[in-house]
Amino acid sequence: MGSNLYVGASINIDGSERTVYLPRCLRGGQTIQRRAEILAFFKSTPELHDPIPVEFMTREERIDNAARKIVAMTDNLDEIDAADFFGEGMYYQSLIMGRDLHPLSLHFVMFIPTIQGQTNDEQLDEWLSLAVARGIIGTYAQTELGHGTNLKNLETTATYDPKTEEFIINSPTITSAKWWPGALGKSSNYAVVVAQLYTRGVCYGPHPFIVQLRDLETHKPMKGVRVGDIGPKFGFNSSDNGFLLFDNYRIPRQHMLMRYSKVEPDGTYIAPKHSKLGYGTMVFVRSIMIKDQATQLAAAACIAVRYSAIRRQGEIKPGSGEVQILDYQTQQFRLLPQLARAFAFMFAAYEIRDMYMKVTEQLTHGNVDLLPEIHALSSGLKSVVSWEAAQGIEQCRLACGGHGYSLASAFPEIYAYSVGGCTYEGENIVMLLQVARFLMKAAEEVRNGNARLANICGYLAKSGSAHSGFRSWDAYTDGDIVQDFEHVARKQVFRAYDALKRHQRETTAEEAWNRSSIELCKASRMHVRLYLIRTFLEKVATAPDATLQIPLKDLTRLYAFDLISASQGEFLKGGFMSESQAEGIREGIYRCLERLRPNAVSLVDSWDFDDAELHSVLGRRDGNVYPALLEWAEKSQLNRTEVLPTFEKYLGPMMKEGRSKL
Amino acid sequence: MGSNLYVGASINIDGSERTVYLPRCLRGGQTIQRRAEILAFFKSTPELHDPIPVEFMTREERIDNAARKIVAMTDNLDEIDAADFFGEGMYYQSLIMGRDLHPLSLHFVMFIPTIQGQTNDEQLDEWLSLAVARGIIGTYAQTELGHGTNLKNLETTATYDPKTEEFIINSPTITSAKWWPGALGKSSNYAVVVAQLYTRGVCYGPHPFIVQLRDLETHKPMKGVRVGDIGPKFGFNSSDNGFLLFDNYRIPRQHMLMRYSKVEPDGTYIAPKHSKLGYGTMVFVRSIMIKDQATQLAAAACIAVRYSAIRRQGEIKPGSGEVQILDYQTQQFRLLPQLARAFAFMFAAYEIRDMYMKVTEQLTHGNVDLLPEIHALSSGLKSVVSWEAAQGIEQCRLACGGHGYSLASAFPEIYAYSVGGCTYEGENIVMLLQVARFLMKAAEEVRNGNARLANICGYLAKSGSAHSGFRSWDAYTDGDIVQDFEHVARKQVFRAYDALKRHQRETTAEEAWNRSSIELCKASRMHVRLYLIRTFLEKVATAPDATLQIPLKDLTRLYAFDLISASQGEFLKGGFMSESQAEGIREGIYRCLERLRPNAVSLVDSWDFDDAELHSVLGRRDGNVYPALLEWAEKSQLNRTEVLPTFEKYLGPMMKEGRSKL
Repeated sequence: MGSNLYVGASINIDGSERTVYLPRCLRGGQTIQRRAEILAFFKSTPELHDPIPVEFMTREERIDNAARKIVAMTDNLDEIDAADFFGEGMYYQSLIMGRDLHPLSLHFVMFIPTIQGQTNDEQLDEWLSLAVARGIIGTYAQTELGHGTNLKNLETTATYDPKTEEFIINSPTITSAKWWPGALGKSSNYAVVVAQLYTRGVCYGPHPFIVQLRDLETHKPMKGVRVGDIGPKFGFNSSDNGFLLFDNYRIPRQHMLMRYSKVEPDGTYIAPKHSKLGYGTMVFVRSIMIKDQATQLAAAACIAVRYSAIRRQGEIKPGSGEVQILDYQTQQFRLLPQLARAFAFMFAAYEIRDMYMKVTEQLTHGNVDLLPEIHALSSGLKSVVSWEAAQGIEQCRLACGGHGYSLASAFPEIYAYSVGGCTYEGENIVMLLQVARFLMKAAEEVRNGNARLANICGYLAKSGSAHSGFRSWDAYTDGDIVQDFEHVARKQVFRAYDALKRHQRETTAEEAWNRSSIELCKASRMHVRLYLIRTFLEKVATAPDATLQIPLKDLTRLYAFDLISASQGEFLKGGFMSESQAEGIREGIYRCLERLRPNAVSLVDSWDFDDAELHSVLGRRDGNVYPALLEWAEKSQLNRTEVLPTFEKYLGPMMKEGRSKL
Repeated sequence: MGSNLYVGASINIDGSERTVYLPRCLRGGQTIQRRAEILAFFKSTPELHDPIPVEFMTREERIDNAARKIVAMTDNLDEIDAADFFGEGMYYQSLIMGRDLHPLSLHFVMFIPTIQGQTNDEQLDEWLSLAVARGIIGTYAQTELGHGTNLKNLETTATYDPKTEEFIINSPTITSAKWWPGALGKSSNYAVVVAQLYTRGVCYGPHPFIVQLRDLETHKPMKGVRVGDIGPKFGFNSSDNGFLLFDNYRIPRQHMLMRYSKVEPDGTYIAPKHSKLGYGTMVFVRSIMIKDQATQLAAAACIAVRYSAIRRQGEIKPGSGEVQILDYQTQQFRLLPQLARAFAFMFAAYEIRDMYMKVTEQLTHGNVDLLPEIHALSSGLKSVVSWEAAQGIEQCRLACGGHGYSLASAFPEIYAYSVGGCTYEGENIVMLLQVARFLMKAAEEVRNGNARLANICGYLAKSGSAHSGFRSWDAYTDGDIVQDFEHVARKQVFRAYDALKRHQRETTAEEAWNRSSIELCKASRMHVRLYLIRTFLEKVATAPDATLQIPLKDLTRLYAFDLISASQGEFLKGGFMSESQAEGIREGIYRCLERLRPNAVSLVDSWDFDDAELHSVLGRRDGNVYPALLEWAEKSQLNRTEVLPTFEKYLGPMMKEGRSKL
């Protein structure tokens, strides 16, 4: 009970309230004490706050406000353990910056890590302390207008000129414009630019260069540099994502990042000795993304569940007054599976973070065995979690009717922010196909009888039962559930494998891969879902208090039943599940919804969101929704004057003329 | 071939280009000639255009621009056949107003029709010509902050005072504030207000009143009226949706709309003689919504398919250069089912519009037999179409990667606009449950052997085959498809019926309904999907040219296979479909994608979208996407100056201090 993994929440068990303990790791791993301290610091520091809600600001005002806040935020980094970004850092930043980026986001997440990872010793000395001291603002410019995923086709060139010992950076076409980097448009004065390296007439492929974009004193773009904002987007509108074009712009030779490859003064290219082992960082970045997506989904579920307990509409028992809309089965079915998902995703984020730390530890001993499997898993999780989180958030929004459509609810912002995760850091379909490459290799090994699979993929080599172990919704053990998900994942992996082999006999390897790609994506999704449900079950099984396990176990069951029901066909195939078992699964959904209903508000409260973090009028902890909506609306830009200029200019004359004709 | 139902498009059949004819009704029923005339008028009339793209405007600028344009648009109504709103009106308005509302939207759609339908003769004389001449701007204020769907719980009161022969309109609580009506916030000076009618101490339920909100000369709110904008929303941000509160505001007795009920000068209440038969108008409004949703989905598919033919990424044949991303099976699978859906939805919109006209004709003869069935169907279609259109639009957006996230693509706007349709004009789940009420009545009649069902529900009384008629993907007849969809719809309707009956034996009727509601919604969805596929097949079967039927038939198959595959479990149950049949369905998806690929661009072009209507840099007809993206970005608000004030204010001093420390 004293375990630092669990925090108290008030839960209704069989009609009586009691305090039980929910997984603390849900909210960051930091102690409750630290959360409270960070929140208190935020609340007592006026310069970290918005003067008016950001949704009422113009884009220029948002940009201005974000710049002001990020300087104040980073002036006060001593207030947190900045090394613990996964825990304290994410919390601190989300309180201050909300669901947006800011002028220093790429500086900290990409520019400084690239300097740390890609420079030689001299370069490290020159750039790192300058960047850490915020003496310059850097970003990372890789993606181009016409080139995203396929890096080897980037068009920006860096041609070495031995006469002056400079690189000439050039954008030969419009499609070669750097496009999308955060804070590139207006804020950054430096960037790591990825360009095709040419020396002595030979192209050596994409390499990173550190490039000054703007004058340190005037902040005007350097001659030969064309840079600007890429315009408004679905979300992230406080961020000046930018474009960048070079007109034969010269930089010193020493600005090529030379830890792995090098160009000598005479133009000799020295190839890298080691591969870059960049996988580890990507796994960490994805663990952060998954935690972030889980948090956004939980926030959406929190807002919708709280509002559904406030909102009353229609009667179930005639004459007994309008009911809380959370009493409707359809409303529960919209919301509670999203809450279950948020728990499952958050557990997975922690698990991946822990794996990353384990792998990093192993890497220091030169052991890279686990890396490909974990890298594949993290790519797949990024894809499945970002998509299911976005869909879940929209369900929460829609479940709040018209009020969910207002920016007062925060849902539109949460959705636009979260769904971006389907695209950045690797487009989801591309990610799933990466996972499939790994799975097909594993399937081949199994077929060849030489599989050496780690735990995550071990199920591929198992034979498994021919029938689901499901008997009734309340006697479906953790072991049964895992076995059943293993069965359908295994079936799909080998179905995709067989399709691939069949196509390979008819056509080229690449075209065969293309013709199998829908089946391959499906296999990756099922592999990831198996991992999610297994992790969820394992984490809940370690809850120290048996009473606590009741609502958490209901959430695991709801999660499993909902997934099975959505892919019913896969479970019915080959008679693996009978139709009466499938009926039982459906019945299980209804039972779980009923059982979870009384605890729904407690379960969302256990995530310990502060109103400042939710930033939603609908999701207020005090439930005082309606007066707050009116108060929020009165701040609308249009309400600053009683009569808009449109009356004098257009509508008034039109009406006057209309009346004069009668 | 000369049939006016079809318009020409260039289609690739077996490798050779030829012009075939696509259904003209896709684009309005108006002749091609009229479309061209309207477009030419729009293009040659500068005051109908935006000075800069709306996505670069602040909310105030958008509001101002919309007011200016709507006056100009309605000044020029002679250019179109305004009586043909379904055809010419929708096209004209979409060219000018884009995907948004405007200060007169509720005036035309709700205020004037309410005056036409609810006034007595004197009132009609007083108000109709004034409204039609645009002498006043009216809106329709029904929904309240705390009350949406359940009208009988509205809180606004209209209490008759016989002493002054006035009604006192009052908002007793904050939850009684009128909330959401379009153009209420700032534009309208009149509204039809729905309020609980009290006279002689008795409440007679909600009634409509015509209420002046603002002074005709100054446009200031009248004393006792508190009115304003409800703030920014996910979409529709050129519209001043509003709130409205009354503080014992007095209006003349004659402002109660008295066609059906009446209050005499002495306060005597006269009850309505006829029920209101308002169903007909709702059916018409929904046919418009369905057409609109189909158009938005088609626009999204058009943008994404065109861009996928421009964008190149990765190689399939090594060494032969990057391929169009439309060549990837996964990309085709994301996009082409959306295109098929758009066709299916558009055909359904026309069918419902035709049914509405038939029913209206019958109503004049006092025949209301068809009305309940068609009303139920249109509610269900509204729900299924709005949700699937929104989901499809997001798939199109995501398939365009990072560029899909930019407002330059138009996708975020299309999505926000379209997904609003899931909520307004009846929340989708509420709509599905309405359909279910009808279906349960029909099921009961079938079980009792006294069903008198019209064509749409006739399948409920059929026995049907025990097995799917599917043999192979290219020998699955229209008849087989309809029978198979009938089978699963019928099974689900009776599954829901049986669940309802079982629950009714255990609990109250209302609670039984609630406990069955997930199954009931599912039944409604399957009923609607059957209607959609049947209509789609029927319309394609009437294509006059056999060659034309090839790509259209492929679209119907893709649509059917995709739906079956998504609900595979339902088709496998009871051995209705065998597993090899299910495999054949999946194979059919792949074959249809391959076959449709060469015609994909022609098929989206056949919708005849002008660039002005798409308003998307990615979807340009000329394919000149990349330079246009750069040009668009350069218009960004942030690019008006090279250096933003943030540099002087925050970022410059921060960096200077950082550098000084080193």
